[in-house]
Amino acid sequence: MNTPELVELAQQLRVDSVRCSAAAGSGHPTSSMSAADLMAVLLANHLRYDFDRPDHPGNDRFILSKGHASPLLYSAYKAAGVVDDAELLTFRKLGSRLEGHPTPQRLPWVETATGSLGQGLPVGVGIALAGKRLDRTDYRVWVLCGDSELAEGAVWEAAEHASYEHLDNLTAIIDVNRLGQRGPTRHGHDLDAYARRLEAFGWHTVEVDGHDVDAIDRAYGEAISTKGQPTAVLARTLKGKGVGAVQDREGLHGKPLPGPEEAIAELGGPRDLRVHVHEPHSARLLHAVRDGQVELPRFDKGEEVATRDAYGKALAALGTGRGEIVALDGEVSDSTRAEYFAKEHPERFFECYIAEQQLVAAAVGLSTRGWVPYASTFAAFLTRAYDFVRMASISGAGINLVGSHAGVAIGQDGPSQMGLEDLAMFRAVHGSTVLYPCDANQTARLVAAMADLDGIRYLRTSRGKSAVLYGPDEEFPIGGSKVLRSSDRDRLTLVAAGVTVPEALAAADALDRAGIQVRVIDLYSVKPVDRLTLRQAAEDTGCLLTVEDHHEAGGLGDAALDPFLDGRPMPRLVRLAVRTMPGSAAPDEQLHAAGIDAESIVAAVQLLVEQAVVR
Amino acid sequence: MNTPELVELAQQLRVDSVRCSAAAGSGHPTSSMSAADLMAVLLANHLRYDFDRPDHPGNDRFILSKGHASPLLYSAYKAAGVVDDAELLTFRKLGSRLEGHPTPQRLPWVETATGSLGQGLPVGVGIALAGKRLDRTDYRVWVLCGDSELAEGAVWEAAEHASYEHLDNLTAIIDVNRLGQRGPTRHGHDLDAYARRLEAFGWHTVEVDGHDVDAIDRAYGEAISTKGQPTAVLARTLKGKGVGAVQDREGLHGKPLPGPEEAIAELGGPRDLRVHVHEPHSARLLHAVRDGQVELPRFDKGEEVATRDAYGKALAALGTGRGEIVALDGEVSDSTRAEYFAKEHPERFFECYIAEQQLVAAAVGLSTRGWVPYASTFAAFLTRAYDFVRMASISGAGINLVGSHAGVAIGQDGPSQMGLEDLAMFRAVHGSTVLYPCDANQTARLVAAMADLDGIRYLRTSRGKSAVLYGPDEEFPIGGSKVLRSSDRDRLTLVAAGVTVPEALAAADALDRAGIQVRVIDLYSVKPVDRLTLRQAAEDTGCLLTVEDHHEAGGLGDAALDPFLDGRPMPRLVRLAVRTMPGSAAPDEQLHAAGIDAESIVAAVQLLVEQAVVR
Repeated sequence: MNTPELVELAQQLRVDSVRCSAAAGSGHPTSSMSAADLMAVLLANHLRYDFDRPDHPGNDRFILSKGHASPLLYSAYKAAGVVDDAELLTFRKLGSRLEGHPTPQRLPWVETATGSLGQGLPVGVGIALAGKRLDRTDYRVWVLCGDSELAEGAVWEAAEHASYEHLDNLTAIIDVNRLGQRGPTRHGHDLDAYARRLEAFGWHTVEVDGHDVDAIDRAYGEAISTKGQPTAVLARTLKGKGVGAVQDREGLHGKPLPGPEEAIAELGGPRDLRVHVHEPHSARLLHAVRDGQVELPRFDKGEEVATRDAYGKALAALGTGRGEIVALDGEVSDSTRAEYFAKEHPERFFECYIAEQQLVAAAVGLSTRGWVPYASTFAAFLTRAYDFVRMASISGAGINLVGSHAGVAIGQDGPSQMGLEDLAMFRAVHGSTVLYPCDANQTARLVAAMADLDGIRYLRTSRGKSAVLYGPDEEFPIGGSKVLRSSDRDRLTLVAAGVTVPEALAAADALDRAGIQVRVIDLYSVKPVDRLTLRQAAEDTGCLLTVEDHHEAGGLGDAALDPFLDGRPMPRLVRLAVRTMPGSAAPDEQLHAAGIDAESIVAAVQLLVEQAVVR
Repeated sequence: MNTPELVELAQQLRVDSVRCSAAAGSGHPTSSMSAADLMAVLLANHLRYDFDRPDHPGNDRFILSKGHASPLLYSAYKAAGVVDDAELLTFRKLGSRLEGHPTPQRLPWVETATGSLGQGLPVGVGIALAGKRLDRTDYRVWVLCGDSELAEGAVWEAAEHASYEHLDNLTAIIDVNRLGQRGPTRHGHDLDAYARRLEAFGWHTVEVDGHDVDAIDRAYGEAISTKGQPTAVLARTLKGKGVGAVQDREGLHGKPLPGPEEAIAELGGPRDLRVHVHEPHSARLLHAVRDGQVELPRFDKGEEVATRDAYGKALAALGTGRGEIVALDGEVSDSTRAEYFAKEHPERFFECYIAEQQLVAAAVGLSTRGWVPYASTFAAFLTRAYDFVRMASISGAGINLVGSHAGVAIGQDGPSQMGLEDLAMFRAVHGSTVLYPCDANQTARLVAAMADLDGIRYLRTSRGKSAVLYGPDEEFPIGGSKVLRSSDRDRLTLVAAGVTVPEALAAADALDRAGIQVRVIDLYSVKPVDRLTLRQAAEDTGCLLTVEDHHEAGGLGDAALDPFLDGRPMPRLVRLAVRTMPGSAAPDEQLHAAGIDAESIVAAVQLLVEQAVVR
């Protein structure tokens, strides 16, 4: 498009942003209007995208990191001819695809859900990494950011990662409209302040008047021609640009325009321009399954193996059999054992350094391109990325997250390194799967099984070695469990997972010697849980005693209740969990201090027998 | 101390780090050895600290952000005469104060728990803010960071905040030993790479040889004399410095030295130097309680008020009555209503912009100086700071966190803005308090009550208006509940909180008209819960039906079970919660779609009656 056409297109995007927000009675027209020229030039002259084939491997990728400016995005979709005017006016209404913030669950052209600020660029880095290192096609990733969101640390994790990996296929477009929600940003219209920071982080920067379509056009061209480093286009804009009543004024964030009709007239009235978006370059996906045969590692019963070791070995084997498996780690791959994968498949391993938000975001980005990522760090440090996990679930992203060094069982390092909230955190995520294996063969099987699930998959591994309990051919369906001790005289049921399984077994054997039979369930699938087995145990024994290396809220104990929340008769319940703040001590001392070792279980059961709580 | 003494002291710190790690059989001596000169010069010549009075208001503050280098810290405590050699050798053992990573719960000289990297500087910013804007004393904050942790985005949130607030009382000492846990950092020994970034963020920087005590001494002096901006001392160091077998070598992170005796000999053997640490400047605390009288806002029954409005008003009133109350917000104070406090008490309000990690860290830092912080943002965005909340609980920090716009009830903005995991997240935190008021008077009372609790306090507020239910003189003890409907013919108990309380009441009234009596409990104290009332309801009605605007795991439904987890007979349980991924819709449509509105509750109860589940 030439200059007058671009100007007209931008005005159309503004008008449509005003119109759909007015129809909704809510939304962010002013934040859309500041970026309308930036969007118009991108859509008409630079983006290469086949809207009929959103999965085209050669498509450029566009992320609206400032997701609240969704009216602008949807107006662009209208200009591209994939959303009609009637649908545009369903914005923010029940059942509409045009949600307040864009999500790929509803719209095929959206790469990732945004709306929590500072996440678009980190996810864009993940997609650009895929383009650069894996897909090896020349699609570009364009991320439209707000200026306010540059205060988020995650943006700087992304900035660092992008320049270190020379992601010249990535362009950040920063809409510097100087006004956040509450008022002025720290740096206002000081574009140099942002440029200094980004350049120090290794980026090429271009400063432009964000309402000069020719300048924007040249800046995008410069971004495309810049090699070896990512480019940030820093655009000076005005919030609410084009409508005097709101332009560059505070207190108008997230509100429809006061007089939409007058505003539309001021903007020159409605238009119905259609944009012919450039076709993508031809490209093909490189990650077809290699041979489909995965030879998982096999461990002998009784062998002492840490589940984190089994994770690393299984992942490496999975990567050998399946070309679409990739791994990422937060600079602790020697601990999580992701290094086993890294050594065998260095071309598919991504070191994310100590930046857990970028770690998860990169996994999300890779998943959008069809790769199956496994991202690992200590379970404790995944808490750093909870907002990214939450947003990934809104995206419907399929990612595997692996938290090692879970629980007090790590021993001497103390509470800062112990994941004691991770099960609660992941169970609360919509549509998640939560797995907690207790031995090496079980781990290997679950690592393979999780690859093909939907949504967020979490695997919890342990630091210390433990005896292999199951044979290498045993199967572990998601949503299943293993009954390890059972008789028709069981007086209660011990429900354990991970490190508490051997403790429960030792307790059961000790109790058996004292004439008290108990059932033992290995609840390796914490979400979903094995409802039938738990219900049967409740019916048979009348009492469930859960034992977990996790704080008492939200973990295994809560999971074990899931089968009973429909009004059916309840078993009695007793919960053993970590109820105090641990210190430093040896692993066995930790389990004992927390009251979740075999001895503590025996004592708890004996007390219940004495109190005649169990039958 | 003069140069030879400083050199000797640094060697002593190295020797003691090697000794205590050897005695423990674990720990991070090599990470301690790189920073030994940095620590020696600080302790002997620049830190102003009264170890006998760790709460002295004039004390400098030291944070070991690279918390794994705890052997160095404890060796420094020995040199300062507050830990003896016998205690030093208890490092990492059961019951020792000298944990793997330092925590203020055990040691009075530790400001904040570290061990999750990248948190020391953000907390240090909070303390420096207190010094600059509130305490108005000239203590300095010294933060010793590793180089690896500069990859954490939170560090850059802190860097931005510190320069913006001109925190020239803050010095970051960066131990650039070039080796992370797994291997080399991104920038190795390229000090300029860090300097460029920090200078772009507005910091003064000094680059030094981190093993030249005179250069370090001059650098600290320069930091002290630099006005108007924080200073970073970038020190080129060698991991494992001083012992040839480990110095500057990979693969030796977090391991005791292979031959400790030879290493100690190479370091010149044990020493027993004592450091006379400089006295603090005299200072006094400024935040004595103003008058002790807090006039909370009062709302009339039936008035329509959003709980977020009541929060803002109550907080402003609390701030008027109590001088130690401070407020922080993540650039959404117009939404959370923290702006009411900001307008009345601007000198005690801290705008943290869109940087939720720094928001929580600043609250933690302020709390260490005796201030009582309330930090607010959308409930959804507090997930961004979960690792900081987790670490704050390990610190035993007393902070109030307030999440607004909770749940699907926000309406059109869609799932990215909805807190649906926050109750689970906060319940899983050790020692936390979780409150979820349903009306304005209840909110005001809880805002006041939470100020004086221990640990992490979380208050969940709602966007939309709701009718005031309680009178202004009603009391709401922490751990209490309100029985809103009750009869001797109740066939089940509805347990609600927040936005589901009016829904439960409407449902109860509709059911009553249909001849079905139900009890209704307002469980505003989600943690701790009112055990007696819930047990009584279980005994009286036999069935609890929980209704919550939160995902099904870890929230109100789980909280309501807490009284029954000791093996006592259980009531039947039914849970209504948000089980699908919401889209955009009006608030009432959202509650209905999620199945948590009055109509859905009525339908659920009627089904239970038809199925004869309830008696």
